Amino acid sequence: MSTSDKRTPKSVLFLEDLHAGMTFSSNCHTIDEGQIIAFATQFDPQPFHLGHESARGTFFGELVASGWHTAAITMRLLVESDVSFAGGAIGAGAEISWPAPTRPGDILRIEGEIIEVIPSKTRKDRGSIIVKSRTLNQRNETLQKMTARMVVMTRKQAG
Amino acid sequence: MSTSDKRTPKSVLFLEDLHAGMTFSSNCHTIDEGQIIAFATQFDPQPFHLGHESARGTFFGELVASGWHTAAITMRLLVESDVSFAGGAIGAGAEISWPAPTRPGDILRIEGEIIEVIPSKTRKDRGSIIVKSRTLNQRNETLQKMTARMVVMTRKQAG
Repeated sequence: MSTSDKRTPKSVLFLEDLHAGMTFSSNCHTIDEGQIIAFATQFDPQPFHLGHESARGTFFGELVASGWHTAAITMRLLVESDVSFAGGAIGAGAEISWPAPTRPGDILRIEGEIIEVIPSKTRKDRGSIIVKSRTLNQRNETLQKMTARMVVMTRKQAG
Repeated sequence: MSTSDKRTPKSVLFLEDLHAGMTFSSNCHTIDEGQIIAFATQFDPQPFHLGHESARGTFFGELVASGWHTAAITMRLLVESDVSFAGGAIGAGAEISWPAPTRPGDILRIEGEIIEVIPSKTRKDRGSIIVKSRTLNQRNETLQKMTARMVVMTRKQAG
């Protein structure tokens, strides 16, 4: 996986540092035919993900990436984004949609926003945040929308 | 990717063939440390996904698979399940959660149910279905819950 335009080192943010309205962005990742076919061969072996020839006459009519490939690249871009959450990027669940397919040559990046910060009622060492992200290509077309719930650690010790 | 226990050939189901309450199941897939680390290296390079050593002292405390890896394997199991939808397994979006982490040695399989069949109001050649699935391991622990909206073709021509 190649990424470009690495950002400056980032500081780790604890739950106390986060608030609704904070935004973040990411590096870019260029997806190509080889990546699309390799991912699909392993995880989503359907004609429209496996080759230009086999994609003809299918629902998409052309080679497109598996939505789960777009989701996986989005995760990589999040891990390498300009925010870093204490404990890591730990997803508990997500709502995800793919308004447009990802195509060979697309240059993906994400734009994210923290929508809500939710302290835990039972554990003082952690809480959760709701994060909305869009995965965009070089034409600013939205390839994936996601609303994820993530676990973030606080500065307090467990107990 | 290795799968076992291949089922008998399956027939292709069109939207007209589907109804709420239909269930399906899948082959099994055994996930190991090598697969977990390979996926994470490419898509989710965080200490708890990259090795036993680096996972110590993290949120999980042990090596676990990326949730997106569980999702990707679930897609493979769906493609190879005992149902086949006309046009392919085309996801428009999904709600997904990971109640428990996937660990090395887990044997994954899916159980699915069609919850709703929705003909299109504007296009007679297609409709959508809502599918609920659970990804389980060999101890019947639920590793992933998903409710997905999928596009399925009808027997009618576009027009």
